[in-house]
Amino acid sequence: MGFRERLEQAWALQNSLVCVGLDTDVRKIPLHLRDRPEHLAVRRFNEDIVRACAPYCSVFKLQFAFYLEAGLVQVVIDTIAFIRQHYPNHVIILDAKWGDVKETAKAYQRFGSGLLNYDAVTLWPGTGSESMRPFFDDPEHGAIFVCRTSNPGSPELQDAPVFIGYDDGTRAAKTEPYWFWQGKQIAHWNQHGNVGLVMGATFPGELRQMREAVGDDMFSLNPGIGAQTKEQGIENPIQAAVEAGQDSSGKGMIINSSRGIIFASSGEDYAEAAARETERLRDEINRFRIRQEVTR
Amino acid sequence: MGFRERLEQAWALQNSLVCVGLDTDVRKIPLHLRDRPEHLAVRRFNEDIVRACAPYCSVFKLQFAFYLEAGLVQVVIDTIAFIRQHYPNHVIILDAKWGDVKETAKAYQRFGSGLLNYDAVTLWPGTGSESMRPFFDDPEHGAIFVCRTSNPGSPELQDAPVFIGYDDGTRAAKTEPYWFWQGKQIAHWNQHGNVGLVMGATFPGELRQMREAVGDDMFSLNPGIGAQTKEQGIENPIQAAVEAGQDSSGKGMIINSSRGIIFASSGEDYAEAAARETERLRDEINRFRIRQEVTR
Repeated sequence: MGFRERLEQAWALQNSLVCVGLDTDVRKIPLHLRDRPEHLAVRRFNEDIVRACAPYCSVFKLQFAFYLEAGLVQVVIDTIAFIRQHYPNHVIILDAKWGDVKETAKAYQRFGSGLLNYDAVTLWPGTGSESMRPFFDDPEHGAIFVCRTSNPGSPELQDAPVFIGYDDGTRAAKTEPYWFWQGKQIAHWNQHGNVGLVMGATFPGELRQMREAVGDDMFSLNPGIGAQTKEQGIENPIQAAVEAGQDSSGKGMIINSSRGIIFASSGEDYAEAAARETERLRDEINRFRIRQEVTR
Repeated sequence: MGFRERLEQAWALQNSLVCVGLDTDVRKIPLHLRDRPEHLAVRRFNEDIVRACAPYCSVFKLQFAFYLEAGLVQVVIDTIAFIRQHYPNHVIILDAKWGDVKETAKAYQRFGSGLLNYDAVTLWPGTGSESMRPFFDDPEHGAIFVCRTSNPGSPELQDAPVFIGYDDGTRAAKTEPYWFWQGKQIAHWNQHGNVGLVMGATFPGELRQMREAVGDDMFSLNPGIGAQTKEQGIENPIQAAVEAGQDSSGKGMIINSSRGIIFASSGEDYAEAAARETERLRDEINRFRIRQEVTR
Protein backbone atom coordinates (compact mmCIF):
# COMPACT_ATOMS: atom_id res chain seq x y z
CA MET A 1 0.00 0.00 0.00
CA GLY A 2 1.40 3.45 -0.88
CA PHE A 3 1.90 6.12 1.73
CA ARG A 4 -1.07 8.25 0.71
CA GLU A 5 -3.40 5.26 0.89
CA ARG A 6 -2.07 4.38 4.35
CA LEU A 7 -2.68 7.93 5.51
CA GLU A 8 -6.22 8.06 4.05
CA GLN A 9 -6.97 4.76 5.72
CA ALA A 10 -5.67 5.94 9.10
CA TRP A 11 -7.77 9.11 8.90
CA ALA A 12 -10.88 7.09 8.05
CA LEU A 13 -10.42 4.18 10.48
CA GLN A 14 -9.64 6.48 13.39
CA ASN A 15 -11.96 9.32 12.39
CA SER A 16 -9.23 11.56 13.70
CA LEU A 17 -6.81 14.08 12.23
CA VAL A 18 -4.78 14.18 15.44
CA CYS A 19 -1.06 13.49 15.42
CA VAL A 20 0.48 12.81 18.82
CA GLY A 21 3.97 14.29 18.96
CA LEU A 22 6.39 12.11 20.91
CA ASP A 23 8.79 14.97 21.70
CA THR A 24 10.02 12.99 24.64
CA ASP A 25 12.40 15.25 26.49
CA VAL A 26 13.83 12.95 29.13
CA ARG A 27 14.05 15.79 31.67
CA LYS A 28 10.28 16.26 31.51
CA ILE A 29 8.98 12.73 31.92
CA PRO A 30 7.31 11.87 35.26
CA LEU A 31 9.69 11.50 38.17
CA HIS A 32 8.52 8.03 39.14
CA LEU A 33 9.69 6.66 35.76
CA ARG A 34 13.23 7.86 36.29
CA ASP A 35 14.18 5.06 38.67
CA ARG A 36 15.55 3.07 35.72
CA PRO A 37 18.13 3.60 32.96
CA GLU A 38 17.18 6.49 30.66
CA HIS A 39 16.53 4.40 27.57
CA LEU A 40 14.12 2.17 29.47
CA ALA A 41 12.37 5.15 31.05
CA VAL A 42 11.81 6.87 27.69
CA ARG A 43 10.75 3.63 25.99
CA ARG A 44 8.25 2.91 28.76
CA PHE A 45 6.92 6.48 28.63
CA ASN A 46 6.50 6.33 24.83
CA GLU A 47 4.78 2.94 24.94
CA ASP A 48 2.36 4.10 27.63
CA ILE A 49 1.55 7.26 25.67
CA VAL A 50 1.09 5.32 22.42
CA ARG A 51 -1.20 2.75 24.05
CA ALA A 52 -3.29 5.43 25.75
CA CYS A 53 -3.58 7.80 22.78
CA ALA A 54 -3.86 5.35 19.86
CA PRO A 55 -7.69 5.13 19.99
CA TYR A 56 -8.01 8.88 19.44
CA CYS A 57 -5.29 9.69 16.90
CA SER A 58 -4.28 8.56 13.42
CA VAL A 59 -0.61 9.54 13.41
CA PHE A 60 2.39 9.50 15.74
CA LYS A 61 5.34 11.80 15.16
CA LEU A 62 8.74 11.48 16.79
CA GLN A 63 10.90 14.60 17.14
CA PHE A 64 14.37 13.29 16.37
CA ALA A 65 16.28 16.06 18.17
CA PHE A 66 15.25 15.00 21.67
CA TYR A 67 16.36 11.41 21.11
CA LEU A 68 19.65 12.43 19.54
CA GLU A 69 20.38 14.78 22.41
CA ALA A 70 19.80 12.02 24.96
CA GLY A 71 21.80 9.45 22.96
CA LEU A 72 18.63 7.45 22.41
CA VAL A 73 18.41 6.83 18.65
CA GLN A 74 17.72 3.19 19.50
CA VAL A 75 14.55 4.24 21.34
CA VAL A 76 13.27 5.82 18.12
CA ILE A 77 13.77 2.46 16.41
CA ASP A 78 12.14 0.60 19.32
CA THR A 79 9.17 2.96 19.56
CA ILE A 80 8.49 2.74 15.83
CA ALA A 81 8.67 -1.06 16.02
CA PHE A 82 6.24 -1.02 18.96
CA ILE A 83 3.72 1.12 17.07
CA ARG A 84 4.05 -1.07 13.95
CA GLN A 85 3.43 -4.23 15.96
CA HIS A 86 0.48 -3.08 18.07
CA TYR A 87 -1.10 -0.31 15.96
CA PRO A 88 -0.26 -1.28 12.38
CA ASN A 89 -2.79 1.12 10.87
CA HIS A 90 -1.34 4.21 12.50
CA VAL A 91 1.02 6.35 10.46
CA ILE A 92 4.50 7.11 11.84
CA ILE A 93 6.36 10.32 10.99
CA LEU A 94 9.93 11.14 11.89
CA ASP A 95 10.36 14.88 12.40
CA ALA A 96 14.01 15.23 11.43
CA LYS A 97 13.92 18.12 8.93
CA TRP A 98 16.72 16.62 6.86
CA GLY A 99 17.90 18.36 3.73
CA ASP A 100 21.10 17.91 1.78
CA VAL A 101 22.63 17.27 -1.63
CA LYS A 102 22.29 14.06 -3.57
CA GLU A 103 24.59 11.41 -2.04
CA THR A 104 23.89 12.64 1.48
CA ALA A 105 20.15 12.84 0.89
CA LYS A 106 20.29 9.23 -0.27
CA ALA A 107 22.08 8.20 2.92
CA TYR A 108 19.36 9.83 5.04
CA GLN A 109 16.68 8.22 2.92
CA ARG A 110 18.19 4.75 3.27
CA PHE A 111 18.50 5.21 7.04
CA GLY A 112 14.92 6.41 7.43
CA SER A 113 13.12 3.84 5.29
CA GLY A 114 15.51 1.09 6.37
CA LEU A 115 16.76 0.94 9.94
CA LEU A 116 14.22 3.41 11.33
CA ASN A 117 11.33 2.07 9.28
CA TYR A 118 9.16 5.19 9.42
CA ASP A 119 6.25 5.97 7.09
CA ALA A 120 7.23 9.58 6.40
CA VAL A 121 9.80 12.21 7.25
CA THR A 122 9.99 16.01 7.38
CA LEU A 123 12.51 17.68 5.06
CA TRP A 124 13.97 21.07 4.10
CA PRO A 125 13.39 21.37 0.34
CA GLY A 126 16.11 23.96 -0.42
CA THR A 127 18.45 21.75 -2.45
CA GLY A 128 15.67 21.20 -4.97
CA SER A 129 14.10 18.24 -6.74
CA GLU A 130 17.40 16.98 -8.16
CA SER A 131 18.57 16.16 -4.61
CA MET A 132 15.21 15.48 -2.91
CA ARG A 133 14.07 12.95 -5.51
CA PRO A 134 15.04 9.86 -3.44
CA PHE A 135 12.40 10.96 -0.94
CA PHE A 136 9.48 12.08 -3.09
CA ASP A 137 9.98 9.42 -5.77
CA ASP A 138 9.30 6.65 -3.25
CA PRO A 139 5.51 6.20 -3.13
CA GLU A 140 5.76 3.92 -0.07
CA HIS A 141 6.97 6.80 2.09
CA GLY A 142 5.73 10.33 2.69
CA ALA A 143 7.98 13.34 2.04
CA ILE A 144 6.79 16.32 4.05
CA PHE A 145 8.57 19.54 3.12
CA VAL A 146 8.93 22.51 5.43
CA CYS A 147 6.92 25.39 3.99
CA ARG A 148 5.53 27.71 6.71
CA THR A 149 6.87 26.93 10.17
CA SER A 150 4.72 27.52 13.26
CA ASN A 151 7.07 29.80 15.20
CA PRO A 152 6.44 33.55 15.64
CA GLY A 153 9.70 34.38 13.82
CA SER A 154 8.89 32.39 10.69
CA PRO A 155 8.00 35.46 8.54
CA GLU A 156 11.57 36.83 8.76
CA LEU A 157 12.96 34.68 5.93
CA GLN A 158 9.81 32.89 4.71
CA ASP A 159 7.97 36.07 3.69
CA ALA A 160 10.58 37.31 1.20
CA PRO A 161 8.52 38.91 -1.60
CA VAL A 162 9.00 36.88 -4.78
CA PHE A 163 8.37 38.84 -7.98
CA ILE A 164 5.80 37.12 -10.18
CA GLY A 165 4.98 39.77 -12.81
CA TYR A 166 3.34 43.14 -13.32
CA ASP A 167 -0.23 44.17 -12.62
CA ASP A 168 -1.95 44.64 -15.99
CA GLY A 169 -3.43 48.02 -15.10
CA THR A 170 -1.03 49.81 -12.80
CA ARG A 171 2.16 48.06 -13.96
CA ALA A 172 3.03 47.65 -10.26
CA ALA A 173 5.14 44.63 -9.34
CA LYS A 174 3.12 41.67 -8.10
CA THR A 175 4.74 39.51 -5.44
CA GLU A 176 3.96 36.51 -3.30
CA PRO A 177 5.77 35.33 -0.16
CA TYR A 178 8.60 32.87 -0.63
CA TRP A 179 6.96 30.11 1.44
CA PHE A 180 3.93 30.19 -0.91
CA TRP A 181 5.98 30.33 -4.09
CA GLN A 182 8.10 27.44 -2.83
CA GLY A 183 5.09 25.37 -1.77
CA LYS A 184 3.64 25.62 -5.28
CA GLN A 185 6.96 24.49 -6.78
CA ILE A 186 6.99 21.50 -4.45
CA ALA A 187 3.46 20.61 -5.57
CA HIS A 188 5.02 19.68 -8.93
CA TRP A 189 7.11 17.02 -7.16
CA ASN A 190 3.95 15.28 -5.97
CA GLN A 191 3.54 12.58 -8.61
CA HIS A 192 2.49 9.86 -6.15
CA GLY A 193 0.32 11.75 -3.67
CA ASN A 194 2.97 11.17 -1.03
CA VAL A 195 4.23 14.76 -0.82
CA GLY A 196 3.00 17.03 1.97
CA LEU A 197 3.89 20.42 3.42
CA VAL A 198 4.64 21.55 6.95
CA MET A 199 2.18 24.40 7.49
CA GLY A 200 2.05 25.79 11.03
CA ALA A 201 -1.41 25.65 12.60
CA THR A 202 -0.53 29.05 14.06
CA PHE A 203 -0.99 30.66 10.62
CA PRO A 204 -4.58 29.94 9.47
CA GLY A 205 -4.49 32.59 6.74
CA GLU A 206 -1.50 30.90 5.16
CA LEU A 207 -3.12 27.46 5.56
CA ARG A 208 -6.14 28.66 3.58
CA GLN A 209 -4.00 30.31 0.90
CA MET A 210 -2.04 27.11 0.35
CA ARG A 211 -5.12 24.89 0.35
CA GLU A 212 -6.77 27.08 -2.27
CA ALA A 213 -3.65 26.89 -4.43
CA VAL A 214 -3.07 23.14 -4.34
CA GLY A 215 -6.64 21.82 -4.00
CA ASP A 216 -7.00 18.32 -2.59
CA ASP A 217 -3.72 16.99 -3.99
CA MET A 218 -1.52 17.77 -1.02
CA PHE A 219 -1.81 17.07 2.67
CA SER A 220 -0.27 19.22 5.37
CA LEU A 221 1.39 18.55 8.71
CA ASN A 222 0.30 21.22 11.15
CA PRO A 223 2.41 21.79 14.24
CA GLY A 224 1.81 24.51 16.80
CA ILE A 225 -1.57 23.52 18.24
CA GLY A 226 -1.44 23.47 22.03
CA ALA A 227 1.65 24.85 23.71
CA GLN A 228 2.60 27.16 20.82
CA THR A 229 -0.84 28.67 20.16
CA LYS A 230 -1.11 29.35 23.90
CA GLU A 231 2.30 31.04 23.97
CA GLN A 232 1.38 33.12 20.91
CA GLY A 233 -2.06 34.07 22.35
CA ILE A 234 -4.10 32.79 19.39
CA GLU A 235 -7.88 32.58 19.99
CA ASN A 236 -9.90 29.55 18.81
CA PRO A 237 -6.79 28.17 17.13
CA ILE A 238 -8.31 24.79 16.35
CA GLN A 239 -11.42 26.13 14.64
CA ALA A 240 -9.32 28.60 12.66
CA ALA A 241 -6.81 25.97 11.54
CA VAL A 242 -9.34 23.28 10.60
CA GLU A 243 -11.64 25.62 8.69
CA ALA A 244 -8.66 26.95 6.75
CA GLY A 245 -6.65 23.81 6.13
CA GLN A 246 -9.03 20.90 5.49
CA ASP A 247 -9.59 19.61 1.98
CA SER A 248 -12.95 19.14 0.29
CA SER A 249 -13.49 15.82 2.07
CA GLY A 250 -12.80 17.23 5.56
CA LYS A 251 -9.38 15.60 5.68
CA GLY A 252 -5.93 16.50 4.32
CA MET A 253 -4.47 17.60 7.67
CA ILE A 254 -2.16 15.99 10.22
CA ILE A 255 -2.72 18.20 13.25
CA ASN A 256 0.08 17.75 15.73
CA SER A 257 0.13 18.41 19.43
CA SER A 258 3.19 17.38 21.40
CA ARG A 259 3.84 18.92 24.81
CA GLY A 260 0.11 19.68 25.26
CA ILE A 261 -0.63 15.95 25.14
CA ILE A 262 2.38 14.02 26.38
CA PHE A 263 3.11 16.35 29.29
CA ALA A 264 -0.55 17.04 30.14
CA SER A 265 0.17 15.57 33.56
CA SER A 266 3.53 15.05 35.23
CA GLY A 267 2.04 12.65 37.76
CA GLU A 268 1.33 8.93 37.70
CA ASP A 269 -1.75 9.60 35.56
CA TYR A 270 0.32 10.89 32.63
CA ALA A 271 -1.01 8.31 30.18
CA GLU A 272 -4.69 8.85 31.09
CA ALA A 273 -4.19 12.61 30.98
CA ALA A 274 -2.59 12.28 27.51
CA ALA A 275 -5.50 10.11 26.34
CA ARG A 276 -8.11 12.59 27.60
CA GLU A 277 -6.28 15.47 25.91
CA THR A 278 -6.01 13.54 22.61
CA GLU A 279 -9.71 12.67 22.72
CA ARG A 280 -10.64 16.26 23.51
CA LEU A 281 -8.50 17.51 20.61
CA ARG A 282 -9.96 14.94 18.20
CA ASP A 283 -13.49 15.94 19.13
CA GLU A 284 -12.84 19.65 18.89
CA ILE A 285 -11.21 19.20 15.47
CA ASN A 286 -14.09 17.02 14.28
CA ARG A 287 -16.65 19.72 15.20
CA PHE A 288 -15.16 21.91 12.46
CA ARG A 289 -14.63 19.31 9.75
CA ILE A 290 -17.06 19.67 6.87
CA ARG A 291 -17.39 15.88 6.65
CA GLN A 292 -16.23 12.97 8.73
CA GLU A 293 -16.72 9.27 9.27
CA VAL A 294 -19.30 8.40 11.93
CA THR A 295 -17.54 8.04 15.26
CA ARG A 296 -17.66 4.42 16.32
CA MET B 1 38.89 31.64 22.68
CA GLY B 2 35.86 32.41 20.48
CA PHE B 3 35.12 30.39 17.36
CA ARG B 4 36.26 33.03 14.90
CA GLU B 5 39.61 33.39 16.67
CA ARG B 6 40.07 29.62 16.63
CA LEU B 7 39.33 29.55 12.90
CA GLU B 8 41.68 32.45 12.14
CA GLN B 9 44.38 30.73 14.16
CA ALA B 10 43.89 27.42 12.33
CA TRP B 11 44.11 29.13 8.93
CA ALA B 12 47.32 30.93 9.96
CA LEU B 13 49.08 28.06 11.76
CA GLN B 14 48.36 25.60 8.99
CA ASN B 15 48.64 28.05 6.08
CA SER B 16 45.79 26.08 4.58
CA LEU B 17 42.16 26.73 3.74
CA VAL B 18 41.51 23.03 3.17
CA CYS B 19 38.75 21.21 5.02
CA VAL B 20 38.92 17.42 4.89
CA GLY B 21 35.42 15.99 4.74
CA LEU B 22 35.08 12.78 6.72
CA ASP B 23 32.06 11.53 4.75
CA THR B 24 32.94 8.04 5.82
CA ASP B 25 30.56 5.75 4.00
CA VAL B 26 31.33 2.37 5.52
CA ARG B 27 30.69 0.61 2.20
CA LYS B 28 33.53 2.54 0.59
CA ILE B 29 36.36 2.12 3.07
CA PRO B 30 39.25 -0.17 2.04
CA LEU B 31 38.43 -3.86 2.12
CA HIS B 32 41.33 -4.83 4.39
CA LEU B 33 39.86 -2.68 7.19
CA ARG B 34 36.56 -4.52 7.15
CA ASP B 35 37.86 -7.55 9.04
CA ARG B 36 36.64 -5.99 12.31
CA PRO B 37 33.35 -4.66 13.69
CA GLU B 38 32.05 -1.70 11.71
CA HIS B 39 32.49 0.91 14.42
CA LEU B 40 36.13 -0.07 14.85
CA ALA B 41 36.75 -0.08 11.11
CA VAL B 42 35.30 3.41 10.64
CA ARG B 43 37.07 4.77 13.71
CA ARG B 44 40.37 3.37 12.50
CA PHE B 45 39.82 4.75 9.00
CA ASN B 46 38.97 8.22 10.38
CA GLU B 47 41.96 8.29 12.70
CA ASP B 48 44.33 7.28 9.92
CA ILE B 49 42.91 9.94 7.60
CA VAL B 50 43.06 12.62 10.30
CA ARG B 51 46.66 11.75 11.19
CA ALA B 52 47.74 11.73 7.54
CA CYS B 53 45.90 14.91 6.46
CA ALA B 54 46.28 17.11 9.54
CA PRO B 55 49.57 18.71 8.40
CA TYR B 56 47.92 20.01 5.24
CA CYS B 57 44.47 21.15 6.37
CA SER B 58 43.00 23.50 8.95
CA VAL B 59 39.52 22.02 9.33
CA PHE B 60 37.84 18.61 9.52
CA LYS B 61 34.16 18.19 8.72
CA LEU B 62 32.05 15.15 9.55
CA GLN B 63 28.96 14.45 7.44
CA PHE B 64 26.44 13.30 10.03
CA ALA B 65 24.20 11.36 7.60
CA PHE B 66 26.71 8.59 6.91
CA TYR B 67 27.27 7.90 10.61
CA LEU B 68 23.56 7.96 11.40
CA GLU B 69 22.85 5.57 8.56
CA ALA B 70 25.43 3.10 9.84
CA GLY B 71 24.29 3.45 13.45
CA LEU B 72 27.65 4.99 14.34
CA VAL B 73 26.85 8.24 16.16
CA GLN B 74 29.37 7.15 18.78
CA VAL B 75 32.11 7.18 16.13
CA VAL B 76 31.36 10.88 15.50
CA ILE B 77 31.92 11.51 19.21
CA ASP B 78 35.09 9.38 19.24
CA THR B 79 36.54 10.97 16.10
CA ILE B 80 35.94 14.48 17.41
CA ALA B 81 37.60 13.52 20.72
CA PHE B 82 40.56 12.08 18.79
CA ILE B 83 41.03 15.29 16.78
CA ARG B 84 40.74 17.45 19.92
CA GLN B 85 43.34 15.39 21.71
CA HIS B 86 45.95 15.11 18.97
CA TYR B 87 45.28 18.17 16.80
CA PRO B 88 43.85 20.73 19.22
CA ASN B 89 44.34 23.66 16.85
CA HIS B 90 42.25 22.15 14.06
CA VAL B 91 38.64 23.24 13.72
CA ILE B 92 35.89 20.60 13.73
CA ILE B 93 32.61 21.07 11.86
CA LEU B 94 29.59 18.81 12.02
CA ASP B 95 27.71 18.88 8.73
CA ALA B 96 24.21 18.10 10.00
CA LYS B 97 22.11 20.86 8.37
CA TRP B 98 19.80 21.11 11.35
CA GLY B 99 16.98 23.63 11.38
CA ASP B 100 13.90 23.76 13.55
CA VAL B 101 11.79 25.92 15.86
CA LYS B 102 12.90 27.16 19.23
CA GLU B 103 12.73 24.29 21.75
CA THR B 104 13.91 21.78 19.17
CA ALA B 105 16.72 24.04 17.96
CA LYS B 106 17.86 24.31 21.57
CA ALA B 107 17.92 20.52 21.90
CA TYR B 108 20.13 20.21 18.80
CA GLN B 109 22.37 22.99 20.07
CA ARG B 110 22.82 21.34 23.47
CA PHE B 111 23.62 18.02 21.81
CA GLY B 112 26.15 19.54 19.44
CA SER B 113 28.10 21.74 21.84
CA GLY B 114 27.74 19.20 24.65
CA LEU B 115 27.98 15.49 23.89
CA LEU B 116 29.41 15.89 20.38
CA ASN B 117 31.73 18.76 21.33
CA TYR B 118 32.13 20.22 17.84
CA ASP B 119 33.39 23.71 17.02
CA ALA B 120 30.71 24.53 14.46
CA VAL B 121 27.65 23.12 12.74
CA THR B 122 25.81 23.63 9.45
CA LEU B 123 22.18 24.79 9.69
CA TRP B 124 19.13 25.58 7.58
CA PRO B 125 18.20 29.18 8.47
CA GLY B 126 14.53 29.09 7.41
CA THR B 127 12.92 29.36 10.86
CA GLY B 128 14.62 32.73 11.31
CA SER B 129 16.68 34.43 14.00
CA GLU B 130 14.06 33.91 16.71
CA SER B 131 14.66 30.16 16.52
CA MET B 132 18.30 30.08 15.38
CA ARG B 133 19.53 32.40 18.14
CA PRO B 134 20.85 29.58 20.41
CA PHE B 135 23.35 28.82 17.66
CA PHE B 136 24.53 32.23 16.48
CA ASP B 137 24.44 33.84 19.94
CA ASP B 138 27.10 31.44 21.21
CA PRO B 139 30.49 32.98 20.28
CA GLU B 140 32.33 29.79 21.24
CA HIS B 141 30.73 27.88 18.34
CA GLY B 142 30.34 28.60 14.66
CA ALA B 143 26.89 28.68 13.03
CA ILE B 144 27.18 28.04 9.30
CA PHE B 145 23.92 28.63 7.44
CA VAL B 146 23.05 27.01 4.13
CA CYS B 147 22.91 29.73 1.48
CA ARG B 148 23.91 28.42 -1.98
CA THR B 149 24.32 24.65 -2.11
CA SER B 150 26.87 23.07 -4.45
CA ASN B 151 24.53 20.73 -6.36
CA PRO B 152 23.48 21.34 -9.99
CA GLY B 153 19.81 21.58 -8.94
CA SER B 154 20.33 24.31 -6.37
CA PRO B 155 18.95 27.13 -8.55
CA GLU B 156 15.47 25.57 -8.63
CA LEU B 157 14.35 27.00 -5.27
CA GLN B 158 17.35 29.15 -4.34
CA ASP B 159 17.07 31.49 -7.34
CA ALA B 160 13.51 32.69 -6.65
CA PRO B 161 13.54 36.38 -7.71
CA VAL B 162 13.02 38.54 -4.62
CA PHE B 163 11.56 41.97 -5.37
CA ILE B 164 13.75 44.74 -3.94
CA GLY B 165 12.33 47.89 -5.57
CA TYR B 166 11.97 49.71 -8.89
CA ASP B 167 14.66 50.93 -11.20
CA ASP B 168 14.74 54.73 -10.97
CA GLY B 169 14.73 55.29 -14.71
CA THR B 170 12.70 52.52 -16.30
CA ARG B 171 10.46 51.74 -13.30
CA ALA B 172 11.16 48.06 -13.97
CA ALA B 173 11.12 45.74 -11.00
CA LYS B 174 14.55 45.00 -9.54
CA THR B 175 15.09 41.55 -8.09
CA GLU B 176 17.82 39.48 -6.52
CA PRO B 177 17.93 35.71 -6.05
CA TYR B 178 16.56 34.36 -2.77
CA TRP B 179 19.87 32.80 -1.67
CA PHE B 180 21.54 36.23 -1.91
CA TRP B 181 18.72 38.10 -0.21
CA GLN B 182 18.72 35.51 2.57
CA GLY B 183 22.51 35.55 2.98
CA LYS B 184 22.41 39.31 3.55
CA GLN B 185 19.69 38.91 6.19
CA ILE B 186 21.81 36.30 7.94
CA ALA B 187 24.74 38.72 7.94
CA HIS B 188 22.76 40.77 10.51
CA TRP B 189 22.86 37.78 12.87
CA ASN B 190 26.65 37.86 12.89
CA GLN B 191 27.34 39.85 16.05
CA HIS B 192 30.26 37.69 17.18
CA GLY B 193 32.04 36.87 13.90
CA ASN B 194 31.00 33.25 14.34
CA VAL B 195 28.38 33.16 11.56
CA GLY B 196 29.27 31.71 8.17
CA LEU B 197 27.49 30.68 4.98
CA VAL B 198 27.52 27.47 2.98
CA MET B 199 28.44 28.65 -0.51
CA GLY B 200 29.08 25.91 -3.05
CA ALA B 201 32.53 26.09 -4.65
CA THR B 202 30.76 25.05 -7.83
CA PHE B 203 29.25 28.56 -8.16
CA PRO B 204 32.16 31.05 -8.32
CA GLY B 205 29.95 33.88 -9.60
CA GLU B 206 27.74 33.58 -6.54
CA LEU B 207 30.77 33.33 -4.25
CA ARG B 208 32.05 36.64 -5.58
CA GLN B 209 28.64 38.31 -5.33
CA MET B 210 28.29 37.31 -1.68
CA ARG B 211 31.85 38.29 -0.78
CA GLU B 212 31.33 41.73 -2.30
CA ALA B 213 28.12 42.15 -0.31
CA VAL B 214 29.40 41.10 3.11
CA GLY B 215 33.02 42.19 2.96
CA ASP B 216 35.42 40.50 5.37
CA ASP B 217 32.85 39.96 8.13
CA MET B 218 31.68 36.52 7.10
CA PHE B 219 33.46 33.31 6.27
CA SER B 220 32.11 30.66 3.95
CA LEU B 221 32.17 26.88 3.88
CA ASN B 222 32.68 25.74 0.30
CA PRO B 223 31.71 22.20 -0.59
CA GLY B 224 31.82 20.76 -4.08
CA ILE B 225 35.54 20.87 -4.88
CA GLY B 226 36.72 17.50 -6.16
CA ALA B 227 34.11 14.90 -6.93
CA GLN B 228 31.30 17.42 -7.57
CA THR B 229 33.24 19.83 -9.80
CA LYS B 230 34.39 16.83 -11.83
CA GLU B 231 30.82 15.53 -12.18
CA GLN B 232 29.63 18.96 -13.20
CA GLY B 233 32.49 19.46 -15.68
CA ILE B 234 33.78 22.73 -14.20
CA GLU B 235 37.20 23.88 -15.49
CA ASN B 236 39.84 25.28 -13.14
CA PRO B 237 37.37 25.06 -10.29
CA ILE B 238 39.90 25.83 -7.57
CA GLN B 239 41.25 28.96 -9.16
CA ALA B 240 37.74 30.19 -9.87
CA ALA B 241 36.49 29.54 -6.34
CA VAL B 242 39.49 31.00 -4.52
CA GLU B 243 39.69 34.14 -6.65
CA ALA B 244 35.98 34.72 -6.10
CA GLY B 245 35.53 33.78 -2.46
CA GLN B 246 38.61 34.87 -0.49
CA ASP B 247 38.48 37.94 1.72
CA SER B 248 40.90 40.88 1.61
CA SER B 249 43.47 38.96 3.66
CA GLY B 250 43.41 35.87 1.42
CA LYS B 251 41.38 33.88 3.92
CA GLY B 252 37.66 33.65 4.81
CA MET B 253 37.08 30.28 3.10
CA ILE B 254 36.77 26.71 4.35
CA ILE B 255 37.24 24.74 1.15
CA ASN B 256 35.97 21.21 1.58
CA SER B 257 36.86 18.09 -0.32
CA SER B 258 35.48 14.78 0.89
CA ARG B 259 35.38 11.82 -1.49
CA GLY B 260 38.26 13.28 -3.54
CA ILE B 261 40.53 13.03 -0.50
CA ILE B 262 39.37 10.20 1.72
CA PHE B 263 38.67 7.76 -1.10
CA ALA B 264 41.66 8.83 -3.23
CA SER B 265 42.86 5.24 -2.94
CA SER B 266 40.90 2.16 -1.96
CA GLY B 267 44.08 0.21 -1.28
CA GLU B 268 46.33 -0.09 1.74
CA ASP B 269 47.87 3.29 0.89
CA TYR B 270 44.58 5.13 1.51
CA ALA B 271 46.04 7.39 4.20
CA GLU B 272 49.11 8.37 2.17
CA ALA B 273 46.96 8.95 -0.89
CA ALA B 274 44.64 11.16 1.17
CA ALA B 275 47.62 13.11 2.52
CA ARG B 276 49.06 13.66 -0.96
CA GLU B 277 45.68 14.83 -2.24
CA THR B 278 45.23 17.23 0.71
CA GLU B 279 48.70 18.67 0.21
CA ARG B 280 48.09 19.07 -3.53
CA LEU B 281 44.79 20.86 -2.85
CA ARG B 282 46.36 23.13 -0.23
CA ASP B 283 49.12 24.11 -2.62
CA GLU B 284 46.81 24.73 -5.54
CA ILE B 285 44.54 26.88 -3.37
CA ASN B 286 47.50 28.82 -2.01
CA ARG B 287 48.65 29.67 -5.55
CA PHE B 288 45.53 31.78 -5.96
CA ARG B 289 45.37 33.43 -2.53
CA ILE B 290 46.24 37.11 -2.63
CA ARG B 291 48.17 36.76 0.62
CA GLN B 292 49.26 33.88 2.79
CA GLU B 293 51.55 32.94 5.64
CA VAL B 294 54.94 31.62 4.57
CA THR B 295 54.75 27.86 4.18
CA ARG B 296 56.84 26.30 6.92
